[in-house]
Amino acid sequence: MKKLINSVDTVLAESLAGFTAAHADIVAADPEGRFVRRAAVTPGKVALISGGGSGHEPLHAGFVGRGMLDAACPGQVFTSPTPDQMIAAAEAVESGAGVLFIVKNYEGDVMNFDMAREMLDRPVATVLTNDDVAVETSSYSTGRRGVAGTMIVEKIVGAAAEEGRDLAALQALGERVNGRTRSMGVALTSCTVPAAGKPTFALGEGEMEMGVGIHGEPGRRRVPLASADAIAAEMVEAVLGDLADQASGDALLLINGFGGTPLMELYLMYDAVRRRLNGRGVTVARSVVGSYVTSLDMAGCSVTLSMLDPETVALWDAPVHTAALRWGA
Amino acid sequence: MKKLINSVDTVLAESLAGFTAAHADIVAADPEGRFVRRAAVTPGKVALISGGGSGHEPLHAGFVGRGMLDAACPGQVFTSPTPDQMIAAAEAVESGAGVLFIVKNYEGDVMNFDMAREMLDRPVATVLTNDDVAVETSSYSTGRRGVAGTMIVEKIVGAAAEEGRDLAALQALGERVNGRTRSMGVALTSCTVPAAGKPTFALGEGEMEMGVGIHGEPGRRRVPLASADAIAAEMVEAVLGDLADQASGDALLLINGFGGTPLMELYLMYDAVRRRLNGRGVTVARSVVGSYVTSLDMAGCSVTLSMLDPETVALWDAPVHTAALRWGA
Repeated sequence: MKKLINSVDTVLAESLAGFTAAHADIVAADPEGRFVRRAAVTPGKVALISGGGSGHEPLHAGFVGRGMLDAACPGQVFTSPTPDQMIAAAEAVESGAGVLFIVKNYEGDVMNFDMAREMLDRPVATVLTNDDVAVETSSYSTGRRGVAGTMIVEKIVGAAAEEGRDLAALQALGERVNGRTRSMGVALTSCTVPAAGKPTFALGEGEMEMGVGIHGEPGRRRVPLASADAIAAEMVEAVLGDLADQASGDALLLINGFGGTPLMELYLMYDAVRRRLNGRGVTVARSVVGSYVTSLDMAGCSVTLSMLDPETVALWDAPVHTAALRWGA
Repeated sequence: MKKLINSVDTVLAESLAGFTAAHADIVAADPEGRFVRRAAVTPGKVALISGGGSGHEPLHAGFVGRGMLDAACPGQVFTSPTPDQMIAAAEAVESGAGVLFIVKNYEGDVMNFDMAREMLDRPVATVLTNDDVAVETSSYSTGRRGVAGTMIVEKIVGAAAEEGRDLAALQALGERVNGRTRSMGVALTSCTVPAAGKPTFALGEGEMEMGVGIHGEPGRRRVPLASADAIAAEMVEAVLGDLADQASGDALLLINGFGGTPLMELYLMYDAVRRRLNGRGVTVARSVVGSYVTSLDMAGCSVTLSMLDPETVALWDAPVHTAALRWGA
C-alpha cells in the first residue's frame, strides 16, 4: 500500500485536522472530532446535516459552508458515523427551524441517522439519496445506493435553506431532486482502504468493473476494458433508460472522478457522454467535471444526470461558499 | 495501461473538446485547437498567455478566465506547444497593451515561447517560473524546473493585469512572486503517458522518488517509502532552506496533488507540513489543497510555499473566475 499517511489509525484525524485548518474561514471543527460545522450559524435557518463514511472526500465536509451544508459527520473510512456524532452536530448547528438529514442510502448510515433522529428532541426530517442505477441492492445497501447525485441534492436544498424555506418544503425539494437524478460508475482499479492495506477487490490488467459502488463494492459485471465512448454509451443508456419519461429538457451533467483519475480523462469522458446525449432530448444546461464523490484512490468515474427545472437551476446557480464548491460568493 | 480514452491519438483533442464545452461560459476554443482563450477579451488590458505540455490539467487551460490568464496553449502530452500556437493565441487576445508570456522553465517551452516573441509584431515580455528546489538541472530543463508555483504567479499577475497595470510592471511582479516561491515534490507511483502505454519510470513497491518533476523525471533520490511526517519534513526543510532569509512572515501554502492522489491524503499532508512549519517564523496566511498542477495519473504531491506581502495577498484574494479557481465572482 502506497499512501501519504503516518499510521492507519490516525489517517482520519490528521486529514480532518488539515481540512479544518486549511478552510478555517469556512468551517470549524468539533474539539472531539465528531463533526465539521460552518464557522457561523445562520439563526432561524433549517440546519442541513449530512455525513457518512470517510474516503469520499470532498463529500461531505467539503460541502459545509454558506449555501450548502451546516455540518457533516465523518465516519471512519467506509464506515457510518455514529448517532452521537449526528446528535452532537445537530445540537451545535440547529437554531430553531429544525434539522434536515441528507443521507446516502447505505444500511449503516440509514440506521444511525434514524437513531439520531429518534433521540433528538428537535424537529428532524430526512432525505435519502439513492441515485445509483447500477444495482438494486448491494453488499452495503437495501435498495439503490446513494452516490454522486448526493452532491447535487446538497447544493440545491442548501440554496433553498438559505432562502428561509421550512423543513417540510426542504425535505420535499430534496426528494424531488433525488427523484430526478441518476448515476452510474465504472472502476478501472480498486481502491485500497488504509486499515486493510490491500486492494478491496482484484481487477485484471485488462478489466473494469461496470456499475461499481463508491466503496469498491460490485457493480453489474466485470468486463474487458472498453473505450471511453463504449463506457459512456453504457452509462448514458442506463441513466436515460432509468429516467424514462423524465429524460427531457435541461439537465445538469456531472462527470465525477473516483480519486485516482486525472482531470484530462474526466474531460474526455465529459466529451464522450455529451456526444452520446446528442439528439436524445436532453440539453446539458449545467456541467460539473471533477473528483467530488470519491472512493479513496480508485481510478474510474461516474456519470450523473440530474434533470433541472427553472426553480432548481436557479437554486443550483445560487451563491455557494464551501471548500469544494464555490461561486457567487 | 488503464485509461478512460478512445485512442492515444485523440486524447488531447477530445479532452479539450470536453473542457471547452463544460466551461463555455468562461472559455472559447480556437477552431484549430491551437489555444483556449477567454470567451471575452478586456480591451486595453495586458494579455496573459501561458501554455506547455498537456497532462498537467487543470494547468494551464483551467486558469483561463477573468482575473487570471487570457489564453493557454496546450502542447501534446508533456511536449511544448509550438510557436504558431502562441502567435495565434497572442493575435486572438492581445488588445493594444502587449502580451506577457508566463513560461515554466523547460527547454522546449522556453525556446518556443522565445521564438514566438521574436516573430510577434507586438510588445511581448516573459516571466519564467522555476520554483522547484529539488534539482538544479534536469532531463527537461537547464536550471530549475517550473512547477506548481506557476499557478500562484498566474493568479497574482492575473489580478494585477485586471487592475490595468502595464507590461513592464506585470513582468516585474511576476518575477518577484516567482522569486519568493519554492516547491518540492514526491512521487509514490509513476505516471503513464498515453502514447507510451507504460509507466515512465519504475518504482518498487516500497519506494518513492523524492524531488520528482512533473513529467516523472528524476528528483534527488529514490528512497524507501516514508511516513507523511518524514516526507513533509524533508520537503519543508528543502523549501525553507532555499528561501533562506525570505522565509519569514505570511505565506501561501499549496499542497498540490499529482493526479492520482486522493484529497484525504493531501489534507493529511497539509496537516503534516503545517505542523513542521510551527515555530519557524512562517505564518500560513493562505492555503490551497488540491490537484492543480498534475502529472497525468501519478500518485504523489508537491509542497509550495510562496511568501506574501500586503500587495500580493490582496492580489491573491482578488476575484477570479476560471474553471479551476473561482472566488469573489
